[in-house]
Amino acid sequence: MSAIGVFDSGVGGLTVLASLKRRLPHCDFVYLGDTARLPYGSKSPDTIRSYLLQNMNFLVKEKVSALVVACNSASTQVREDLHFGVPIYNVIDPGAAAAINLTHSGKIGLVATRATVESKAYQNKVTLKASTENKIVQIFPMACPLLVPLAEEGWLDDPITNLIVYRYLQPLLACEIDSLILGCTHYPLLLNSIKKALSGRDVEIIDSGEVLAEIVASDVHAGKIQCSQNGQLKVYTTDWSAHLESWGSKILNQTQDLRFEHVQILNDEK
Amino acid sequence: MSAIGVFDSGVGGLTVLASLKRRLPHCDFVYLGDTARLPYGSKSPDTIRSYLLQNMNFLVKEKVSALVVACNSASTQVREDLHFGVPIYNVIDPGAAAAINLTHSGKIGLVATRATVESKAYQNKVTLKASTENKIVQIFPMACPLLVPLAEEGWLDDPITNLIVYRYLQPLLACEIDSLILGCTHYPLLLNSIKKALSGRDVEIIDSGEVLAEIVASDVHAGKIQCSQNGQLKVYTTDWSAHLESWGSKILNQTQDLRFEHVQILNDEK
Repeated sequence: MSAIGVFDSGVGGLTVLASLKRRLPHCDFVYLGDTARLPYGSKSPDTIRSYLLQNMNFLVKEKVSALVVACNSASTQVREDLHFGVPIYNVIDPGAAAAINLTHSGKIGLVATRATVESKAYQNKVTLKASTENKIVQIFPMACPLLVPLAEEGWLDDPITNLIVYRYLQPLLACEIDSLILGCTHYPLLLNSIKKALSGRDVEIIDSGEVLAEIVASDVHAGKIQCSQNGQLKVYTTDWSAHLESWGSKILNQTQDLRFEHVQILNDEK
Repeated sequence: MSAIGVFDSGVGGLTVLASLKRRLPHCDFVYLGDTARLPYGSKSPDTIRSYLLQNMNFLVKEKVSALVVACNSASTQVREDLHFGVPIYNVIDPGAAAAINLTHSGKIGLVATRATVESKAYQNKVTLKASTENKIVQIFPMACPLLVPLAEEGWLDDPITNLIVYRYLQPLLACEIDSLILGCTHYPLLLNSIKKALSGRDVEIIDSGEVLAEIVASDVHAGKIQCSQNGQLKVYTTDWSAHLESWGSKILNQTQDLRFEHVQILNDEK
Protein backbone atom coordinates (compact mmCIF):
# COMPACT_ATOMS: atom_id res chain seq x y z
CA MET A 1 0.00 0.00 0.00
CA SER A 2 1.28 3.43 -0.80
CA ALA A 3 0.44 7.09 -1.31
CA ILE A 4 -1.07 8.84 -4.32
CA GLY A 5 1.49 11.06 -6.06
CA VAL A 6 0.37 14.52 -7.15
CA PHE A 7 2.60 16.63 -9.37
CA ASP A 8 2.46 20.32 -10.30
CA SER A 9 4.86 22.93 -11.64
CA GLY A 10 4.43 24.88 -8.40
CA VAL A 11 1.88 25.29 -5.65
CA GLY A 12 -1.19 25.91 -7.87
CA GLY A 13 -1.76 22.14 -7.95
CA LEU A 14 -2.42 22.28 -4.22
CA THR A 15 -5.97 23.34 -5.22
CA VAL A 16 -6.32 19.85 -6.76
CA LEU A 17 -4.71 18.22 -3.72
CA ALA A 18 -7.18 20.10 -1.49
CA SER A 19 -10.09 18.68 -3.59
CA LEU A 20 -8.58 15.19 -3.33
CA LYS A 21 -8.13 15.49 0.43
CA ARG A 22 -11.74 16.64 0.89
CA ARG A 23 -12.91 13.51 -0.95
CA LEU A 24 -10.30 11.11 0.46
CA PRO A 25 -9.47 12.45 3.94
CA HIS A 26 -7.73 9.26 5.09
CA CYS A 27 -5.58 8.65 1.99
CA ASP A 28 -1.84 9.30 1.99
CA PHE A 29 -0.54 11.77 -0.55
CA VAL A 30 2.90 12.80 -1.82
CA TYR A 31 2.95 16.18 -3.58
CA LEU A 32 5.82 17.49 -5.72
CA GLY A 33 5.94 21.14 -6.87
CA ASP A 34 8.73 22.00 -9.32
CA THR A 35 9.13 25.52 -7.90
CA ALA A 36 12.76 25.83 -9.11
CA ARG A 37 11.56 25.85 -12.72
CA LEU A 38 8.01 27.24 -12.55
CA PRO A 39 6.02 28.41 -14.38
CA TYR A 40 5.56 25.80 -17.14
CA GLY A 41 2.89 27.85 -18.93
CA SER A 42 5.42 29.99 -20.82
CA LYS A 43 7.75 27.10 -21.77
CA SER A 44 8.01 24.96 -24.92
CA PRO A 45 6.43 21.47 -25.28
CA ASP A 46 9.88 19.76 -25.33
CA THR A 47 11.04 21.51 -22.18
CA ILE A 48 7.76 20.79 -20.37
CA ARG A 49 7.91 17.13 -21.41
CA SER A 50 11.48 16.79 -20.19
CA TYR A 51 10.60 18.38 -16.80
CA LEU A 52 7.48 16.18 -16.56
CA LEU A 53 9.48 12.96 -17.03
CA GLN A 54 12.05 13.99 -14.42
CA ASN A 55 9.34 14.80 -11.89
CA MET A 56 7.34 11.62 -12.57
CA ASN A 57 10.54 9.60 -12.04
CA PHE A 58 11.00 11.24 -8.67
CA LEU A 59 7.45 10.38 -7.58
CA VAL A 60 7.76 6.79 -8.84
CA LYS A 61 10.84 6.39 -6.62
CA GLU A 62 8.59 7.47 -3.72
CA LYS A 63 6.60 4.29 -4.54
CA VAL A 64 3.28 5.98 -5.29
CA SER A 65 0.31 3.90 -6.40
CA ALA A 66 -0.93 6.47 -8.93
CA LEU A 67 0.43 9.61 -10.60
CA VAL A 68 -1.87 12.63 -10.75
CA VAL A 69 -0.61 15.39 -13.04
CA ALA A 70 -2.39 18.37 -11.51
CA CYS A 71 -0.78 20.94 -13.82
CA ASN A 72 -2.57 21.66 -17.10
CA SER A 73 0.59 22.77 -18.95
CA ALA A 74 2.32 19.52 -17.87
CA SER A 75 -0.82 17.47 -18.70
CA THR A 76 -0.51 18.57 -22.36
CA GLN A 77 2.58 16.33 -22.48
CA VAL A 78 0.99 13.23 -20.89
CA ARG A 79 0.68 10.94 -23.91
CA GLU A 80 -0.30 7.30 -24.45
CA ASP A 81 3.36 6.23 -24.64
CA LEU A 82 4.09 7.31 -21.06
CA HIS A 83 4.47 4.26 -18.80
CA PHE A 84 5.52 4.28 -15.16
CA GLY A 85 3.87 1.03 -13.99
CA VAL A 86 1.06 2.89 -12.18
CA PRO A 87 -2.09 4.64 -13.47
CA ILE A 88 -1.48 8.20 -14.72
CA TYR A 89 -4.22 10.82 -14.42
CA ASN A 90 -4.06 14.10 -16.28
CA VAL A 91 -6.25 17.15 -15.78
CA ILE A 92 -7.22 17.71 -19.42
CA ASP A 93 -9.25 14.56 -20.24
CA PRO A 94 -11.77 15.05 -17.39
CA GLY A 95 -12.11 18.79 -18.11
CA ALA A 96 -12.75 18.18 -21.81
CA ALA A 97 -15.30 15.42 -21.09
CA ALA A 98 -17.16 17.56 -18.54
CA ALA A 99 -17.38 20.47 -20.99
CA ILE A 100 -18.91 18.26 -23.69
CA ASN A 101 -21.47 16.97 -21.22
CA LEU A 102 -22.42 20.45 -20.02
CA THR A 103 -22.59 22.48 -23.21
CA HIS A 104 -25.92 22.97 -24.99
CA SER A 105 -24.89 25.39 -27.71
CA GLY A 106 -21.67 23.49 -28.39
CA LYS A 107 -19.66 26.69 -27.85
CA ILE A 108 -17.04 26.07 -25.18
CA GLY A 109 -14.60 28.67 -23.87
CA LEU A 110 -11.15 27.79 -22.56
CA VAL A 111 -8.93 29.96 -20.37
CA ALA A 112 -5.42 28.60 -19.79
CA THR A 113 -1.70 29.38 -19.98
CA ARG A 114 -0.04 30.09 -23.31
CA ALA A 115 1.56 26.59 -23.31
CA THR A 116 -1.79 24.85 -22.72
CA VAL A 117 -3.61 26.89 -25.39
CA GLU A 118 -0.82 26.50 -27.97
CA SER A 119 -0.55 22.73 -27.36
CA LYS A 120 -4.17 22.44 -28.57
CA ALA A 121 -4.53 19.56 -26.05
CA TYR A 122 -8.02 20.66 -24.89
CA GLN A 123 -9.08 21.56 -28.44
CA ASN A 124 -8.04 18.10 -29.75
CA LYS A 125 -9.56 16.15 -26.84
CA VAL A 126 -12.87 18.03 -27.07
CA THR A 127 -13.11 17.60 -30.85
CA LEU A 128 -12.19 13.90 -30.71
CA LYS A 129 -14.56 13.06 -27.88
CA ALA A 130 -17.41 15.11 -29.35
CA SER A 131 -17.05 13.32 -32.69
CA THR A 132 -17.35 9.89 -31.01
CA GLU A 133 -20.58 11.17 -29.42
CA ASN A 134 -21.84 12.66 -32.70
CA LYS A 135 -21.86 16.14 -31.20
CA ILE A 136 -20.76 19.32 -32.92
CA VAL A 137 -18.72 21.56 -30.66
CA GLN A 138 -16.46 24.54 -31.10
CA ILE A 139 -13.80 25.55 -28.60
CA PHE A 140 -12.75 29.17 -28.16
CA PRO A 141 -9.38 29.42 -26.37
CA MET A 142 -7.83 32.41 -24.62
CA ALA A 143 -4.29 32.42 -23.22
CA CYS A 144 -4.28 34.43 -19.97
CA PRO A 145 -0.63 34.81 -18.90
CA LEU A 146 -1.42 37.37 -16.18
CA LEU A 147 -3.81 35.23 -14.15
CA VAL A 148 -1.19 33.00 -12.49
CA PRO A 149 0.96 35.93 -11.29
CA LEU A 150 -2.21 37.74 -10.09
CA ALA A 151 -3.24 34.69 -8.04
CA GLU A 152 0.30 34.31 -6.67
CA GLU A 153 0.38 38.03 -5.76
CA GLY A 154 -2.76 37.34 -3.71
CA TRP A 155 -4.85 39.99 -5.52
CA LEU A 156 -7.96 37.85 -5.29
CA ASP A 157 -11.37 39.48 -5.81
CA ASP A 158 -9.57 42.76 -6.40
CA PRO A 159 -10.77 45.57 -8.73
CA ILE A 160 -7.62 45.29 -10.87
CA THR A 161 -8.00 41.49 -11.13
CA ASN A 162 -11.66 41.97 -12.09
CA LEU A 163 -10.62 44.29 -14.93
CA ILE A 164 -7.99 41.88 -16.25
CA VAL A 165 -10.29 38.84 -16.08
CA TYR A 166 -13.00 40.91 -17.82
CA ARG A 167 -10.60 41.82 -20.63
CA TYR A 168 -9.59 38.17 -21.16
CA LEU A 169 -13.19 36.89 -21.07
CA GLN A 170 -14.90 39.52 -23.27
CA PRO A 171 -13.83 38.00 -26.62
CA LEU A 172 -15.08 34.57 -25.47
CA LEU A 173 -18.42 36.02 -24.40
CA ALA A 174 -18.68 37.73 -27.79
CA CYS A 175 -18.49 34.21 -29.29
CA GLU A 176 -21.51 33.29 -27.13
CA ILE A 177 -19.89 30.45 -25.19
CA ASP A 178 -22.22 28.64 -22.77
CA SER A 179 -19.49 26.86 -20.81
CA LEU A 180 -15.98 27.82 -19.72
CA ILE A 181 -13.13 25.45 -18.88
CA LEU A 182 -10.74 26.75 -16.20
CA GLY A 183 -7.66 25.15 -17.77
CA CYS A 184 -5.16 26.08 -15.08
CA THR A 185 -5.10 24.98 -11.45
CA HIS A 186 -4.54 28.57 -10.26
CA TYR A 187 -7.74 29.88 -11.80
CA PRO A 188 -10.22 28.54 -9.19
CA LEU A 189 -8.52 31.02 -6.81
CA LEU A 190 -9.86 33.80 -9.06
CA LEU A 191 -13.38 32.39 -9.14
CA ASN A 192 -15.02 35.52 -7.73
CA SER A 193 -13.54 37.71 -10.46
CA ILE A 194 -14.47 35.15 -13.12
CA LYS A 195 -18.06 34.99 -11.87
CA LYS A 196 -18.27 38.80 -11.94
CA ALA A 197 -17.06 38.90 -15.56
CA LEU A 198 -19.66 36.26 -16.50
CA SER A 199 -22.45 37.89 -14.49
CA GLY A 200 -25.77 38.04 -16.35
CA ARG A 201 -24.60 35.40 -18.82
CA ASP A 202 -25.65 31.79 -18.68
CA VAL A 203 -22.18 30.22 -18.67
CA GLU A 204 -21.31 27.02 -16.78
CA ILE A 205 -17.84 27.00 -15.22
CA ILE A 206 -15.83 23.78 -15.43
CA ASP A 207 -13.03 23.46 -12.89
CA SER A 208 -10.84 20.76 -14.51
CA GLY A 209 -9.00 20.09 -11.24
CA GLU A 210 -12.26 19.48 -9.39
CA VAL A 211 -13.48 17.02 -12.06
CA LEU A 212 -10.11 15.24 -11.97
CA ALA A 213 -10.34 14.90 -8.17
CA GLU A 214 -13.82 13.38 -8.50
CA ILE A 215 -12.54 10.73 -10.92
CA VAL A 216 -9.49 9.82 -8.81
CA ALA A 217 -11.67 9.57 -5.67
CA SER A 218 -14.17 7.39 -7.49
CA ASP A 219 -11.33 5.08 -8.70
CA VAL A 220 -10.04 4.78 -5.12
CA HIS A 221 -13.52 3.91 -3.84
CA ALA A 222 -13.91 1.36 -6.66
CA GLY A 223 -10.60 -0.26 -5.65
CA LYS A 224 -8.90 0.62 -8.95
CA ILE A 225 -6.18 2.45 -7.01
CA GLN A 226 -4.81 1.16 -3.72
CA CYS A 227 -3.94 3.83 -1.19
CA SER A 228 -2.62 3.62 2.36
CA GLN A 229 -5.00 5.24 4.81
CA ASN A 230 -2.96 7.10 7.42
CA GLY A 231 -4.06 10.59 6.38
CA GLN A 232 -0.41 11.49 5.79
CA LEU A 233 0.83 14.22 3.48
CA LYS A 234 4.39 14.82 2.26
CA VAL A 235 5.01 18.00 0.28
CA TYR A 236 8.22 18.28 -1.76
CA THR A 237 9.32 21.36 -3.69
CA THR A 238 12.42 21.80 -5.87
CA ASP A 239 13.11 25.28 -4.46
CA TRP A 240 12.32 26.98 -1.19
CA SER A 241 10.28 30.15 -0.99
CA ALA A 242 8.69 31.56 2.14
CA HIS A 243 6.09 33.33 -0.04
CA LEU A 244 4.98 30.19 -1.91
CA GLU A 245 5.03 28.08 1.25
CA SER A 246 2.78 30.43 3.19
CA TRP A 247 0.53 30.68 0.16
CA GLY A 248 0.47 26.88 -0.26
CA SER A 249 -0.51 26.42 3.39
CA LYS A 250 -3.44 28.81 2.84
CA ILE A 251 -4.65 26.89 -0.24
CA LEU A 252 -4.63 23.68 1.78
CA ASN A 253 -6.32 25.53 4.63
CA GLN A 254 -3.67 23.89 6.76
CA THR A 255 -3.86 24.95 10.36
CA GLN A 256 -1.27 22.52 11.62
CA ASP A 257 2.37 22.73 10.49
CA LEU A 258 2.82 21.89 6.82
CA ARG A 259 6.44 20.99 6.24
CA PHE A 260 7.90 21.58 2.77
CA GLU A 261 10.86 19.32 1.98
CA HIS A 262 13.27 20.53 -0.68
CA VAL A 263 14.64 18.15 -3.30
CA GLN A 264 16.82 18.61 -6.34
CA ILE A 265 15.54 17.22 -9.62
CA LEU A 266 18.42 16.80 -12.07
CA ASN A 267 18.16 17.67 -15.75
CA ASP A 268 19.88 14.44 -16.70
CA GLU A 269 17.51 12.17 -14.74
CA LYS A 270 15.82 9.85 -17.23
CA MET B 1 39.87 39.23 -29.44
CA SER B 2 36.38 38.08 -28.57
CA ALA B 3 32.80 39.06 -27.89
CA ILE B 4 31.23 40.53 -24.75
CA GLY B 5 28.96 38.00 -23.03
CA VAL B 6 25.60 39.23 -21.75
CA PHE B 7 23.47 37.00 -19.55
CA ASP B 8 19.83 37.28 -18.47
CA SER B 9 17.17 34.92 -17.13
CA GLY B 10 15.13 35.57 -20.27
CA VAL B 11 14.72 38.24 -22.91
CA GLY B 12 14.32 41.25 -20.57
CA GLY B 13 18.12 41.65 -20.58
CA LEU B 14 17.88 42.46 -24.28
CA THR B 15 17.02 46.02 -23.12
CA VAL B 16 20.58 46.16 -21.69
CA LEU B 17 22.02 44.58 -24.85
CA ALA B 18 20.16 47.23 -26.90
CA SER B 19 21.78 49.98 -24.76
CA LEU B 20 25.20 48.34 -25.20
CA LYS B 21 24.74 48.05 -28.97
CA ARG B 22 23.74 51.71 -29.24
CA ARG B 23 26.97 52.69 -27.49
CA LEU B 24 29.21 50.02 -29.10
CA PRO B 25 27.70 49.39 -32.54
CA HIS B 26 30.76 47.57 -33.89
CA CYS B 27 31.39 45.27 -30.89
CA ASP B 28 30.57 41.56 -31.03
CA PHE B 29 28.14 40.26 -28.43
CA VAL B 30 27.01 36.83 -27.24
CA TYR B 31 23.70 36.86 -25.36
CA LEU B 32 22.35 33.98 -23.28
CA GLY B 33 18.74 33.96 -21.99
CA ASP B 34 17.84 31.12 -19.61
CA THR B 35 14.25 30.93 -20.90
CA ALA B 36 13.84 27.28 -19.83
CA ARG B 37 14.01 28.34 -16.17
CA LEU B 38 12.77 31.93 -16.14
CA PRO B 39 11.76 33.92 -14.20
CA TYR B 40 14.49 34.14 -11.54
CA GLY B 41 12.62 36.82 -9.56
CA SER B 42 10.47 34.31 -7.69
CA LYS B 43 13.27 31.81 -6.95
CA SER B 44 15.51 31.34 -3.90
CA PRO B 45 19.07 32.75 -3.61
CA ASP B 46 20.63 29.24 -3.76
CA THR B 47 18.71 28.28 -6.88
CA ILE B 48 19.50 31.60 -8.60
CA ARG B 49 23.20 31.25 -7.69
CA SER B 50 23.33 27.71 -9.08
CA TYR B 51 21.65 28.80 -12.35
CA LEU B 52 23.97 31.83 -12.57
CA LEU B 53 27.12 29.67 -12.29
CA GLN B 54 25.89 27.24 -14.95
CA ASN B 55 25.09 30.08 -17.35
CA MET B 56 28.38 31.92 -16.72
CA ASN B 57 30.24 28.67 -17.45
CA PHE B 58 28.45 28.41 -20.77
CA LEU B 59 29.44 31.96 -21.76
CA VAL B 60 33.05 31.47 -20.65
CA LYS B 61 33.24 28.46 -23.00
CA GLU B 62 32.14 30.84 -25.77
CA LYS B 63 35.44 32.67 -24.99
CA VAL B 64 33.93 36.01 -24.05
CA SER B 65 36.20 38.88 -22.94
CA ALA B 66 33.75 40.09 -20.25
CA LEU B 67 30.63 38.81 -18.50
CA VAL B 68 27.73 41.24 -18.16
CA VAL B 69 25.00 40.02 -15.81
CA ALA B 70 22.04 41.99 -17.16
CA CYS B 71 19.49 40.39 -14.81
CA ASN B 72 18.98 42.08 -11.44
CA SER B 73 17.81 38.90 -9.67
CA ALA B 74 20.93 37.08 -10.93
CA SER B 75 23.15 40.08 -10.07
CA THR B 76 22.18 39.69 -6.39
CA GLN B 77 24.29 36.50 -6.46
CA VAL B 78 27.39 38.02 -8.10
CA ARG B 79 29.79 38.11 -5.18
CA GLU B 80 33.49 38.91 -4.73
CA ASP B 81 34.39 35.20 -4.72
CA LEU B 82 33.15 34.65 -8.29
CA HIS B 83 36.09 34.22 -10.69
CA PHE B 84 35.91 33.33 -14.36
CA GLY B 85 39.18 34.90 -15.58
CA VAL B 86 37.37 37.85 -17.21
CA PRO B 87 35.82 41.02 -15.75
CA ILE B 88 32.30 40.50 -14.39
CA TYR B 89 29.78 43.36 -14.47
CA ASN B 90 26.57 43.27 -12.50
CA VAL B 91 23.61 45.62 -12.80
CA ILE B 92 23.23 46.47 -9.11
CA ASP B 93 26.50 48.32 -8.34
CA PRO B 94 26.01 50.97 -11.07
CA GLY B 95 22.32 51.44 -10.18
CA ALA B 96 23.11 51.92 -6.49
CA ALA B 97 25.95 54.36 -7.23
CA ALA B 98 23.80 56.42 -9.61
CA ALA B 99 21.00 56.68 -7.04
CA ILE B 100 23.38 58.00 -4.37
CA ASN B 101 24.70 60.61 -6.80
CA LEU B 102 21.22 61.74 -7.83
CA THR B 103 19.31 61.87 -4.55
CA HIS B 104 19.07 65.16 -2.64
CA SER B 105 16.69 64.12 0.15
CA GLY B 106 18.48 60.78 0.63
CA LYS B 107 15.16 58.95 0.14
CA ILE B 108 15.57 56.41 -2.65
CA GLY B 109 12.80 54.14 -3.95
CA LEU B 110 13.49 50.70 -5.43
CA VAL B 111 11.14 48.67 -7.60
CA ALA B 112 12.31 45.13 -8.37
CA THR B 113 11.38 41.44 -8.28
CA ARG B 114 10.71 39.69 -4.99
CA ALA B 115 14.13 37.94 -5.18
CA THR B 116 15.99 41.22 -5.73
CA VAL B 117 14.14 43.02 -2.92
CA GLU B 118 14.51 40.12 -0.45
CA SER B 119 18.23 39.70 -1.22
CA LYS B 120 18.74 43.26 0.12
CA ALA B 121 21.52 43.60 -2.51
CA TYR B 122 20.54 47.17 -3.50
CA GLN B 123 19.83 48.13 0.12
CA ASN B 124 23.28 46.90 1.26
CA LYS B 125 25.17 48.44 -1.67
CA VAL B 126 23.47 51.82 -1.24
CA THR B 127 24.04 51.90 2.52
CA LEU B 128 27.69 50.84 2.21
CA LYS B 129 28.53 53.26 -0.58
CA ALA B 130 26.68 56.14 1.10
CA SER B 131 28.58 55.58 4.36
CA THR B 132 31.95 55.79 2.54
CA GLU B 133 30.76 59.13 1.12
CA ASN B 134 29.46 60.32 4.50
CA LYS B 135 25.93 60.56 3.16
CA ILE B 136 22.78 59.53 4.94
CA VAL B 137 20.36 57.66 2.72
CA GLN B 138 17.29 55.53 3.20
CA ILE B 139 16.09 53.02 0.64
CA PHE B 140 12.38 52.13 0.29
CA PRO B 141 11.92 48.85 -1.60
CA MET B 142 8.79 47.51 -3.31
CA ALA B 143 8.57 44.02 -4.83
CA CYS B 144 6.45 44.24 -7.99
CA PRO B 145 5.86 40.63 -9.18
CA LEU B 146 3.23 41.66 -11.76
CA LEU B 147 5.40 44.03 -13.79
CA VAL B 148 7.45 41.38 -15.64
CA PRO B 149 4.37 39.42 -16.80
CA LEU B 150 2.66 42.70 -17.81
CA ALA B 151 5.67 43.69 -19.94
CA GLU B 152 5.84 40.19 -21.44
CA GLU B 153 2.10 40.30 -22.21
CA GLY B 154 2.83 43.49 -24.17
CA TRP B 155 0.36 45.61 -22.17
CA LEU B 156 2.64 48.64 -22.37
CA ASP B 157 1.19 52.09 -21.63
CA ASP B 158 -2.15 50.40 -20.99
CA PRO B 159 -4.80 51.64 -18.51
CA ILE B 160 -4.58 48.40 -16.50
CA THR B 161 -0.77 48.60 -16.40
CA ASN B 162 -1.04 52.25 -15.28
CA LEU B 163 -3.31 51.17 -12.39
CA ILE B 164 -0.96 48.39 -11.28
CA VAL B 165 2.16 50.58 -11.49
CA TYR B 166 0.29 53.30 -9.56
CA ARG B 167 -0.62 50.83 -6.81
CA TYR B 168 2.98 49.63 -6.46
CA LEU B 169 4.42 53.18 -6.46
CA GLN B 170 1.96 54.91 -4.10
CA PRO B 171 3.56 53.64 -0.85
CA LEU B 172 7.00 54.79 -2.10
CA LEU B 173 5.65 58.25 -2.99
CA ALA B 174 4.09 58.44 0.47
CA CYS B 175 7.65 58.05 1.82
CA GLU B 176 8.64 61.10 -0.27
CA ILE B 177 11.33 59.45 -2.37
CA ASP B 178 13.14 61.80 -4.75
CA SER B 179 14.72 59.05 -6.89
CA LEU B 180 13.56 55.64 -8.06
CA ILE B 181 15.76 52.73 -9.11
CA LEU B 182 14.25 50.50 -11.83
CA GLY B 183 15.77 47.30 -10.43
CA CYS B 184 14.63 44.92 -13.19
CA THR B 185 15.58 44.99 -16.86
CA HIS B 186 11.93 44.61 -17.92
CA TYR B 187 10.82 47.82 -16.20
CA PRO B 188 12.17 50.33 -18.77
CA LEU B 189 9.53 48.86 -21.11
CA LEU B 190 6.90 50.22 -18.70
CA LEU B 191 8.48 53.67 -18.54
CA ASN B 192 5.37 55.49 -19.78
CA SER B 193 3.22 53.99 -17.02
CA ILE B 194 5.92 54.70 -14.44
CA LYS B 195 6.19 58.34 -15.55
CA LYS B 196 2.40 58.71 -15.32
CA ALA B 197 2.39 57.37 -11.75
CA LEU B 198 5.18 59.82 -10.82
CA SER B 199 3.58 62.74 -12.64
CA GLY B 200 3.64 65.98 -10.65
CA ARG B 201 6.33 64.61 -8.33
CA ASP B 202 9.98 65.50 -8.56
CA VAL B 203 11.39 61.97 -8.78
CA GLU B 204 14.47 61.04 -10.83
CA ILE B 205 14.28 57.63 -12.52
CA ILE B 206 17.41 55.48 -12.52
CA ASP B 207 17.52 52.77 -15.18
CA SER B 208 20.17 50.40 -13.76
CA GLY B 209 20.63 48.68 -17.13
CA GLU B 210 21.31 51.98 -18.86
CA VAL B 211 23.91 52.97 -16.24
CA LEU B 212 25.55 49.53 -16.54
CA ALA B 213 25.75 49.89 -20.35
CA GLU B 214 27.42 53.30 -19.94
CA ILE B 215 30.10 51.80 -17.67
CA VAL B 216 30.81 48.79 -19.92
CA ALA B 217 31.04 51.08 -22.98
CA SER B 218 33.39 53.41 -21.17
CA ASP B 219 35.61 50.45 -20.16
CA VAL B 220 35.72 49.26 -23.79
CA HIS B 221 36.70 52.74 -24.97
CA ALA B 222 39.37 52.93 -22.25
CA GLY B 223 40.80 49.57 -23.44
CA LYS B 224 39.96 47.79 -20.18
CA ILE B 225 37.94 45.22 -22.14
CA GLN B 226 39.03 43.93 -25.53
CA CYS B 227 36.24 43.29 -27.98
CA SER B 228 36.27 42.10 -31.59
CA GLN B 229 34.66 44.65 -33.89
CA ASN B 230 32.61 42.80 -36.49
CA GLY B 231 29.21 44.01 -35.26
CA GLN B 232 28.18 40.38 -34.77
CA LEU B 233 25.48 39.17 -32.39
CA LYS B 234 24.77 35.59 -31.28
CA VAL B 235 21.65 35.03 -29.20
CA TYR B 236 21.29 31.77 -27.28
CA THR B 237 18.24 30.72 -25.28
CA THR B 238 17.75 27.56 -23.22
CA ASP B 239 14.19 27.07 -24.50
CA TRP B 240 12.40 28.07 -27.66
CA SER B 241 9.32 30.26 -27.63
CA ALA B 242 7.87 32.03 -30.67
CA HIS B 243 6.31 34.62 -28.33
CA LEU B 244 9.56 35.52 -26.54
CA GLU B 245 11.55 35.51 -29.78
CA SER B 246 9.22 37.91 -31.54
CA TRP B 247 9.18 40.06 -28.43
CA GLY B 248 13.00 39.94 -28.16
CA SER B 249 13.37 41.04 -31.77
CA LYS B 250 11.13 44.03 -31.02
CA ILE B 251 13.21 45.03 -27.98
CA LEU B 252 16.35 44.99 -30.13
CA ASN B 253 14.47 46.86 -32.83
CA GLN B 254 15.92 44.23 -35.12
CA THR B 255 14.73 44.64 -38.67
CA GLN B 256 16.97 41.96 -40.13
CA ASP B 257 16.62 38.29 -39.14
CA LEU B 258 17.61 37.65 -35.52
CA ARG B 259 18.37 33.98 -35.09
CA PHE B 260 17.86 32.41 -31.65
CA GLU B 261 19.99 29.31 -31.07
CA HIS B 262 18.77 26.86 -28.45
CA VAL B 263 21.18 25.28 -25.98
CA GLN B 264 20.73 23.00 -23.00
CA ILE B 265 22.30 24.09 -19.72
CA LEU B 266 22.70 21.12 -17.41
CA ASN B 267 21.98 21.25 -13.70
CA ASP B 268 25.16 19.38 -12.93
CA GLU B 269 27.47 21.69 -14.90
CA LYS B 270 29.95 23.18 -12.47
